[in-house]
Amino acid sequence: MYRTNTCGELRLADAGKKVTLAGWVQRVRKMGGMTFVDVRDRYGITQVVFNNDTDASLCEAANHLGREYVVQITGTVAERSSKNPNIPTGDIEIIAENLNILNKSEVPPFTIEDDTDGGDDLRMKFRYLDLRRNCVRKNLELRHKMTMEVRRYLDGKGFLEIETPMLVGSTPEGARDFVVPSRMNQGQFYALPQSPQTLKQLLMVSGMDRYFQIVKCFRDEDLRADRQPEFTQIDCEMSYVEQDDIINLFEGMAKHLFKELRGVELTEPFPRMPWADAMKYYGSDKPDTRFGMKFVELMDIMKGHGFGVFDNAEYIGGICAEGAAHYTRKQLDQLTEYVKRPQIGAKGMVYARVEADGNVKSSVDKFYSQEVLQQMKAAFNAKPGDLILILSGDDAMKTRKQLSELRLEMGRQLGLRDKNKFSCLWVVDFPMFEWSDEEQRLMAMHHPFTHPKDEDIPLLDTDPAAVRADAYDMVINGVEVGGGSIRIHDSQLQAKMFEILGFTPERAQEQFGFLMNAFKYGAPPHGGLAYGLDRWVSLFAGLDSIRDCIAFPKNNSGRDVMLDAPAPLDQKQLDELALSIDIPEKN
Amino acid sequence: MYRTNTCGELRLADAGKKVTLAGWVQRVRKMGGMTFVDVRDRYGITQVVFNNDTDASLCEAANHLGREYVVQITGTVAERSSKNPNIPTGDIEIIAENLNILNKSEVPPFTIEDDTDGGDDLRMKFRYLDLRRNCVRKNLELRHKMTMEVRRYLDGKGFLEIETPMLVGSTPEGARDFVVPSRMNQGQFYALPQSPQTLKQLLMVSGMDRYFQIVKCFRDEDLRADRQPEFTQIDCEMSYVEQDDIINLFEGMAKHLFKELRGVELTEPFPRMPWADAMKYYGSDKPDTRFGMKFVELMDIMKGHGFGVFDNAEYIGGICAEGAAHYTRKQLDQLTEYVKRPQIGAKGMVYARVEADGNVKSSVDKFYSQEVLQQMKAAFNAKPGDLILILSGDDAMKTRKQLSELRLEMGRQLGLRDKNKFSCLWVVDFPMFEWSDEEQRLMAMHHPFTHPKDEDIPLLDTDPAAVRADAYDMVINGVEVGGGSIRIHDSQLQAKMFEILGFTPERAQEQFGFLMNAFKYGAPPHGGLAYGLDRWVSLFAGLDSIRDCIAFPKNNSGRDVMLDAPAPLDQKQLDELALSIDIPEKN
Repeated sequence: MYRTNTCGELRLADAGKKVTLAGWVQRVRKMGGMTFVDVRDRYGITQVVFNNDTDASLCEAANHLGREYVVQITGTVAERSSKNPNIPTGDIEIIAENLNILNKSEVPPFTIEDDTDGGDDLRMKFRYLDLRRNCVRKNLELRHKMTMEVRRYLDGKGFLEIETPMLVGSTPEGARDFVVPSRMNQGQFYALPQSPQTLKQLLMVSGMDRYFQIVKCFRDEDLRADRQPEFTQIDCEMSYVEQDDIINLFEGMAKHLFKELRGVELTEPFPRMPWADAMKYYGSDKPDTRFGMKFVELMDIMKGHGFGVFDNAEYIGGICAEGAAHYTRKQLDQLTEYVKRPQIGAKGMVYARVEADGNVKSSVDKFYSQEVLQQMKAAFNAKPGDLILILSGDDAMKTRKQLSELRLEMGRQLGLRDKNKFSCLWVVDFPMFEWSDEEQRLMAMHHPFTHPKDEDIPLLDTDPAAVRADAYDMVINGVEVGGGSIRIHDSQLQAKMFEILGFTPERAQEQFGFLMNAFKYGAPPHGGLAYGLDRWVSLFAGLDSIRDCIAFPKNNSGRDVMLDAPAPLDQKQLDELALSIDIPEKN
Repeated sequence: MYRTNTCGELRLADAGKKVTLAGWVQRVRKMGGMTFVDVRDRYGITQVVFNNDTDASLCEAANHLGREYVVQITGTVAERSSKNPNIPTGDIEIIAENLNILNKSEVPPFTIEDDTDGGDDLRMKFRYLDLRRNCVRKNLELRHKMTMEVRRYLDGKGFLEIETPMLVGSTPEGARDFVVPSRMNQGQFYALPQSPQTLKQLLMVSGMDRYFQIVKCFRDEDLRADRQPEFTQIDCEMSYVEQDDIINLFEGMAKHLFKELRGVELTEPFPRMPWADAMKYYGSDKPDTRFGMKFVELMDIMKGHGFGVFDNAEYIGGICAEGAAHYTRKQLDQLTEYVKRPQIGAKGMVYARVEADGNVKSSVDKFYSQEVLQQMKAAFNAKPGDLILILSGDDAMKTRKQLSELRLEMGRQLGLRDKNKFSCLWVVDFPMFEWSDEEQRLMAMHHPFTHPKDEDIPLLDTDPAAVRADAYDMVINGVEVGGGSIRIHDSQLQAKMFEILGFTPERAQEQFGFLMNAFKYGAPPHGGLAYGLDRWVSLFAGLDSIRDCIAFPKNNSGRDVMLDAPAPLDQKQLDELALSIDIPEKN
């Protein structure tokens, strides 16, 4: 037996016991005639003492231990003279009687400490050492606990976890698929699922009633910040439900998770915000509601006073940052630069301070009388000491998105986005379609299987762009942690949907025939939701990147730098797949 | 709300309640002035009654319901006059007051009953209907319950479930990989994991101590019966353990599963059988020990008596089938044909009956005196009424495998392989290597990371073929349900192993450098095991094929006939991947 105890469990009550520990050498210190070795494992750190007077050769061996050596130590638990209140084992130490080096270690390329000296690239290449750090390991422990709790909750509600295949068919709708060439069917390809959407709907057709799966999904997209080519979904579907049934059940699950994983009791129902309001007041379909600063529209007040920028604008709107009138000219210039960055794209920013006497002092004073500025102040309900920031533009949607970025940045600067505060809501009543300039057609905003609101079904023929869907997203702190919809279960309505999306009946049949055929054999009303596991864990762990809650993540080029994957194939493998590589020459 | 209750939960105590049910029409029967509709969902079946006298139009609507229509019915629970003791809801029925057809159904292509009229191909094409059958759905429910119990057990033992990536690097050692072309790194490929073997070892290097994962694995092999290109493993690894620690923990898990899923209490420790004994006495590394019929070797007794077949044989061995002397000549001829089939390949079979008076009557009486036959009888410890069956050949291993097939067939014919009886054992002390005629080199019997037995390490230099490994398989009823080993954690021993396997140091570094490098930074002693989930579920459910416990399986050509995958890709997708297809013409 390699050990009697872990490095995290011995306490004062164990004093006098003979124990064997195994773990990694965190630190070796010589003091007087003693050598202190901190031995670490997943469970904690225990101090081991070697006494030069008692056993000089054993102590000498301890002096030669290097960082990250793997050791097995036998000794007796003793009370420490100088206790360490910062660690649970800090009251005791082990008086060493035997030392066995199980494995040596070269000097690691970075320090195995929370505050490491290793850069991102180095840590990813040696991820197995990076994972030894407490702060990284804790994220994986949290992830484990979260999936256990999700399963416990859903099992308790009668859900069955059912595995759907990873080798499925490719569907051009949606994001780009990863594909897998078939050797037994040369020239043909499987695809890795972007989500088990259609399969879980088939499980509802098959009467499974309540399904879930914690499942890997794949999207071959150009990796923006914080996207991974493979990610994990908590995928759920229920039969014989309406939107409220789903929202209630999964709100319950969210509350359960907050309680079990963060000790936070959320008692109030989550607010439900129509998508149109989210866009109007926050310029985003995933508003961060930890703070206010709701948009105020100013077209009525600010237009027609001779300020050309506003007079020609389609949209004028602003936010009021409470108590931020102290912002200096330099800070305001930096904010202006912020919104003018290409990623945001605003043309400029107007600001106005409410002074102690109630007067408004703005950057456009020469165009506006104090009377008009007071009307504006009233629209924001602003007080002395507040700062008003205004954007305008000729595309209302684009300008709102710019104003949303400004709002988030102000929230950040004013410390209103506390990672330990949680603000949850449902965004509901999404539009069914959105116009794609690129494809010059309507696209499904969620996906083609989403059920339109019953009262909007007549609009499918007359004004499809105005149709709202039975779709909902759960948003926490400005992060979309999950979303779903009631699905279409009628094969004719589904066919109509494909028609509006520009599919010929033949193409709809070719790509989704299996689903539309299934709907002919008694499909029940159904709907569901998928949570993003990586995002949830990041949220609970307070991480800036989902990468930190994934054991072996990929970098922004989709590479695993530790495994050095992807890599070229042997010619033999290519031949078996009847594939040849034909990389076009760059001009 | 679509329903107040499921179709499986109403009882006599509910009589008088007004309820709403939703589900599928299983059956419509007209009797007298009444129409009885059985409504089914995942939870059960409830009988609904429509009375023509009370509401003729409602009853008329019920008469037009077709099989598998989706209906919503409101009514009052009432005690049945003629109860059905076979179903839990058999004491009650619903007196219908309202009927709402939620969806119609075309006539399904086969009956939705345990004993269906649908053939395999049809059931797979319409798998979503096949899954409506009780007997199929129950397998998925068992699978769900099993994974819940596995997680509960391992979580309780301090294991962390950690997800490893699905897009990894390809390794030519082992079975053939499925590969995934990379678009961002054109000309390069990911592979889908055959198992997370090296990644879980890296997790041990990273100090995770106890890891598990229920995970999809992929092998692109020609599909023999009951193989799936994607399958699910319960993958486990532990640090600071010896073989006994792992065997004890996972035997505990097996017993837990037997108890929770089958109500079987296994109290005795599972026997541990050295691989050499398994081969000697059963001709198999996964012996079915539900019955005896152990091999008896007869070289000493039967050679040198003028029977050329035996005199020239390298191996002569037999089994004794208790009480089977009544086998007719025809039955014995059929057995001979059985072992002579090309898949088994025996040249012939010798048989001998022990008669009531103790005399032995054999098919080779003209070569053997009764005295020799009596020696043979004694070797088997055979009694009057027993049947002895003997095979011989010039390759001992091959002949043993033929005899193993004969033994299994006799066990089947004699009813000794009861699906409700379970015989578990560990096969241990596997050889480290096996010779490959095809590759003309030693191959790793488990995998190249398996630790040799400490006492056999010196043999690595002198007689590698004789080296035994710290490897173990769990075998139940002749099925290998799991297996594992203690792993090498020393980079030099690992390098030596690759050398014996014929890797140049460069190739070893290229393919497994990440692992051997990791071993330089303090790898702990570790080992693990992987269970085949599909096989476990099949075993518990008494299935003949693992296909029946998989929601959407593939056929023997690796096709999903429901999704019609794999399929050709668009040229655009091929271009993005810089791939072209080049199928060689058949001659």
